[in-house]
Parts: sequence; C-alpha cells; structure tokens
Amino acid sequence: MATVKVIGSPTSAEVARVLTCLFEKDIEFQLIRVDNYKGQRRLPDYLKLQPFGQALAFEDGKQILVDSREICRHVAEKYAQQGNKDLLGSGTLQRASIEQWLLTEARNFDPPASDLVYNLAFAPLLALEQDREAVERGKKKLNTVLDIYDRRLDETQYLAGDKFTLADLSHLPNAHRLVQYTDFSAMFESRKRVARWWEAISSRASWKRVVQMQQEPPHII
Amino acid sequence: MATVKVIGSPTSAEVARVLTCLFEKDIEFQLIRVDNYKGQRRLPDYLKLQPFGQALAFEDGKQILVDSREICRHVAEKYAQQGNKDLLGSGTLQRASIEQWLLTEARNFDPPASDLVYNLAFAPLLALEQDREAVERGKKKLNTVLDIYDRRLDETQYLAGDKFTLADLSHLPNAHRLVQYTDFSAMFESRKRVARWWEAISSRASWKRVVQMQQEPPHII
Repeated sequence: MATVKVIGSPTSAEVARVLTCLFEKDIEFQLIRVDNYKGQRRLPDYLKLQPFGQALAFEDGKQILVDSREICRHVAEKYAQQGNKDLLGSGTLQRASIEQWLLTEARNFDPPASDLVYNLAFAPLLALEQDREAVERGKKKLNTVLDIYDRRLDETQYLAGDKFTLADLSHLPNAHRLVQYTDFSAMFESRKRVARWWEAISSRASWKRVVQMQQEPPHII
Repeated sequence: MATVKVIGSPTSAEVARVLTCLFEKDIEFQLIRVDNYKGQRRLPDYLKLQPFGQALAFEDGKQILVDSREICRHVAEKYAQQGNKDLLGSGTLQRASIEQWLLTEARNFDPPASDLVYNLAFAPLLALEQDREAVERGKKKLNTVLDIYDRRLDETQYLAGDKFTLADLSHLPNAHRLVQYTDFSAMFESRKRVARWWEAISSRASWKRVVQMQQEPPHII
C-alpha cells in the first residue's frame, strides 16, 4: 500500500502541481477524491473558490502538508534519488536560483494568472460576476512578468537554468488554464522564448498525464 | 457535513446500485474514491476482479455495511419518510414480494449477467482470456430467467407489483452493462414486457444520473 496520499481533485491547480511532481519523481501514491452530493446534485466544493480554502491535503507517513509548493519541495528532497533528480538542482547556487524563480512564480505569476482564470474561465461557467478591473490589472501584471521571463529565457533554456526544475513545473496548472480556457494564449505565443519554454514544459509526459486525469472518469470498470 | 459516506467508484456495479438508491431517497452523502498510482500508471483495483473482493464500503454514522443490497435495504428503511417511499413497499405482503424478487435478482439474474459482462466486455478490455463455456452457460441461464420475468411482467408493471421498488433497482447496473457493452441487448429487446420494463427502469432520473457519473470526470474545476 502506498504511504504517500494525495487528497483532492486533479482538476484543482494545487493538486495538479503536486501530481506532476509525483509523476516526475516516479513515486507510488494513492489519490483520494471526495465529492458531496445532495440528492442528484453534486455540491460545489466551496473551499476551492475561497482564496485561502484548502483543496489539497498530502500525507507521507506521519507528515501532513497542505501547501502545493511545499509538498513539491518535500517530495523532491525526500525522494532525491528517485525519478527526475534535477527538480531542485544540485548544489547551493542552483538551488538558490530555483528558489528565486519558485518565489517569482508564487508571488508574481500565480496571482494575476489566477485572477484571469477565475474571472474569464470559471466565473462565466458558474454564472458569477466577472471583475473587469481585476482582469485589466491581471493582464497588465502578467504582461510585465512575461516580458521578464522572455528576457531570462533568452539566456537559459528553463527559468532556473538549462534543466527543467520545480520552478518551471509550478507554472503548469495555471498557465495551462490561461492558454486553454481564456483568450490570453497569445500572451505566451507572441513571446518567442516564452513560447518555446511553454512548448517544452507543457509537453512533458508528467504534465500530459495530469491533463488526461483532469478529463477522464476515475475508473474504466 | 454529510454523515452518509460511500467509498468506491460509481463505475462499480455494487457502488452504482447504492448511488441509485441514495438518489431515489434524495439523501445527502459524500462519495469517496480512491485510486492507486505507480509513477504515471494507475494500478488496477484488483479487488474488483475477485469474486469476493469488496469494491464498496458504506458508512452511516457508526454503522458500516459492505453489501450493496443490504445497504439499499438499510437506506430505504432508515430514511422511510424521505424521497421515494415505495422502494420497500408498504405492508408485509408487498415487502415479501419485493424480498422475493430481490433474492431472484441476487441469485438468478446477477450471476449469469455478471459472467456475461465479465467475459464479453471486461476480459477483452483487460486482455484476459474469455471463458466461452461460462458465456454459453450464462446465456442459457439468463434466457430462462428473462422468460420468467416476461411472464411476470405481463401481470404487473414492475417485478414486485405496480410500483418501482428495490427489486427493480437492483437489476440496473448489470442489466445496463449487458445492454450497453455486450451483444446481448436483444435478450431484453426481444421480450416485449421485459423491454417495456427495461425502458421504464433505465430511464429513471436516479439511474441516468449514475450513468452520467460513470462517464464524467469528478470535478469541473
């Protein structure tokens, strides 16, 4: 029986980030999904729509974590010798660069990307009001961030150097939603280096598997 | 938080039976699905392929049950005043008739139906060997059973009388698989009364919801 447990849905960005990391590290795990029903209706998972609601829990033996980037770090460190060994680099300098770009993702990329995804893809689906100001603000911020990425990616293949690391991996869930479910795919395509980088990271087998899981029913039989 | 919990996949026949009953009774519940992964591969749920393996657990407060028909009885009795109130009839005579047809389903319909579904639908999918003798035996037994049903359904609208009950409901998961995933739908269609009955029970909103759940990814977002 797997000792690593992930509780959540692969369609959540937080969960998708963790699953991609577990696939990169080739780790055995158990995925547990919980849905609430009232009569024939599936109740929405309200937590997911709240900024600080947890849609994810991770258990590894006695250790319980809830932050997706922290979970990825834990997995890459604890299972250093398994699967992809480059996710946190080797040595202090590489690690520092990865941590810096991980922070950029969490602080500068993810908030505007989430705002755009929420307002442009989910709000219409859930018949909620779109915050036009948040969209304009998000678009402006993201353009600034992606300009910085484009310059960086002129020097290196990936954000933290010439190998795919957690810093790149962390971008996948919300960047995928932006490209797939909003009109903002041009933000990625129009920047030559960003486009090359996006093509490279989004075509990884680990991520393609997660996208497949987001679309498939949980069992064949 | 729902106190009723179902642990299993809606694509399991046992779980589908219980979900249909919960929908008929309009009960709030939590569905918990567990999948095991090794690297990018989802491990098969071996238990489900074993004749006595449990693919289902049901929790209602402190009560834990694992047999789908027993769970349906428990739900129909405990929540007698909620949702569909006819599932176990009213009065001893009706209940006795329902129990008799429930037993017929469990002893005479389900074993040959499961054999046919396993050998004709699942074995090819899983690249397992088909047991041709079991198929012939199952076909013969099922023809006998459906002949009896066809005569019975000439007297009444449903198996245990003129109302839809647990006796009919219990047939849904494996009859659906037979009709949808094997070449044996003619067994139902060629018998006029059986065909009318199948049309009536398979078009119930509760069952259509379960079929939808078997096909859909677990979450939208």
